[in-house]
Amino acid sequence: MSFASHDSATRISAGHAITAEEIGSGAATAPEDVARYALWLGDDALMLAQRLGWWIARAPELEEDVALANIALDLLGHARFLLTYAGTAWGKTEDDLAYFRDEEEFRSCRLVEQENGDFGQTIARQLIFSYYQYELYRRLVRSTDPTLAAIADKALKEVAYHQDHAGQWILRLGLGTDESRRRVQTGLDVLWPYVDELFHDDELVVSLGDAAVLPSSLRADFDRRIGEILAEAGLDVPEVQGAWGGDRSGRFSEQRGHILAEMQVLARQHPGATW
Amino acid sequence: MSFASHDSATRISAGHAITAEEIGSGAATAPEDVARYALWLGDDALMLAQRLGWWIARAPELEEDVALANIALDLLGHARFLLTYAGTAWGKTEDDLAYFRDEEEFRSCRLVEQENGDFGQTIARQLIFSYYQYELYRRLVRSTDPTLAAIADKALKEVAYHQDHAGQWILRLGLGTDESRRRVQTGLDVLWPYVDELFHDDELVVSLGDAAVLPSSLRADFDRRIGEILAEAGLDVPEVQGAWGGDRSGRFSEQRGHILAEMQVLARQHPGATW
Repeated sequence: MSFASHDSATRISAGHAITAEEIGSGAATAPEDVARYALWLGDDALMLAQRLGWWIARAPELEEDVALANIALDLLGHARFLLTYAGTAWGKTEDDLAYFRDEEEFRSCRLVEQENGDFGQTIARQLIFSYYQYELYRRLVRSTDPTLAAIADKALKEVAYHQDHAGQWILRLGLGTDESRRRVQTGLDVLWPYVDELFHDDELVVSLGDAAVLPSSLRADFDRRIGEILAEAGLDVPEVQGAWGGDRSGRFSEQRGHILAEMQVLARQHPGATW
Repeated sequence: MSFASHDSATRISAGHAITAEEIGSGAATAPEDVARYALWLGDDALMLAQRLGWWIARAPELEEDVALANIALDLLGHARFLLTYAGTAWGKTEDDLAYFRDEEEFRSCRLVEQENGDFGQTIARQLIFSYYQYELYRRLVRSTDPTLAAIADKALKEVAYHQDHAGQWILRLGLGTDESRRRVQTGLDVLWPYVDELFHDDELVVSLGDAAVLPSSLRADFDRRIGEILAEAGLDVPEVQGAWGGDRSGRFSEQRGHILAEMQVLARQHPGATW
């Protein structure tokens, strides 16, 4: 990593409240391998934000509309940081990367691309993803890449809330009516095949060493903590086979195309225009 | 208005940062005519929030996704205040009023129910509605109903931002490319027939006196200010006939049913359940 010797990298350090504009202003240029890693973190957040945005004014309570919209906004914020930083490696903006990459160039995991399903399934996805992401970001704050460390530090506080939100709902649904318990358990069962992928160590992340966090190193804490909350909610940890081929290498869910079609259509109709 | 003599009404005064929970806790009970007025203010905000939520991760820039989502959240917040307060008159919660009223019981104006159209039309709707709402709330802070005054005071700061946001985009689109100018002008033309309704003095609002704001009293300031920004943006104030029958008396747009179908389906499938 030649990054440590980069002149202005010291402007960004963990604990300092960064902005996307600041990252984009060239305070630090991402080495290409770090940029590729930032892309897959950012793509996860971007896809999930798009999925959650659907719930605005559709959730079962107005208070919950607000909560899900706030979580979507947090994730959009993380995506903007990560895509902006990744873009510094190639002279691209966050918007270039969000709107002008093709389907196979995204690196999001299949979990976040899955359909919302009913509210129980959305909450099941939130539980799995926020528990995973919390373990990830709480280690990434010690990344040797100061920009990634600063982004993780900012995101961690928000993800801790997402985790708490999902946990409260899991308890409420799991310990609620037979119907609510059945639905959230079905949501967990449907999504669990996509859990393994979150913890897959691919070549890129191994090569990054202490700039990244080895996904497999999160698994034990994730399993223990999610096992505890599911037990408390009277729900079962699904025993299912992992879905085939989860390694972020270009295989993706059939849903990705639908998400991108909605997300990219306007920007692509009028590329580069103020429109 | 027997309201002034209500014991705990003084807990809420303009400038004090209220919460929906506080209003719902019975700090003040709305007289029925004030509640009916609060409903139509709240329904406007609720409908527009639902429309704007659609844009999350679909806007032409990531920054704009965030901006529109924040505006939707602000409006949801206002709707929660107003519906919660209205509900105190009938022993109903905000969720009862949002999810269990039928189409003809809503009192939203037809402007906010109109489809998003393209981004230009959404911005045109934002301009018209935020300019109207700013004039309304800046007078409603002097309402003789202290709860309405406090809600208006909180909302006004946010609506001032919405107005600024819409104004900036109107300038950018109006002074941008031929295509962006054409689209935003078309959006204004399509929506202008619904402007008159915003300024209609119906019986209810007349009977409320100084607890409410007479819509017709806002028109001159609205016309002057929106005329100025449209002129600056090189856009025309449309010269069109007002749409037939805009008086919030039960006539509504064909779009209202679609909005409510999406908004209410989950809550109605499982009424009263924790689900």
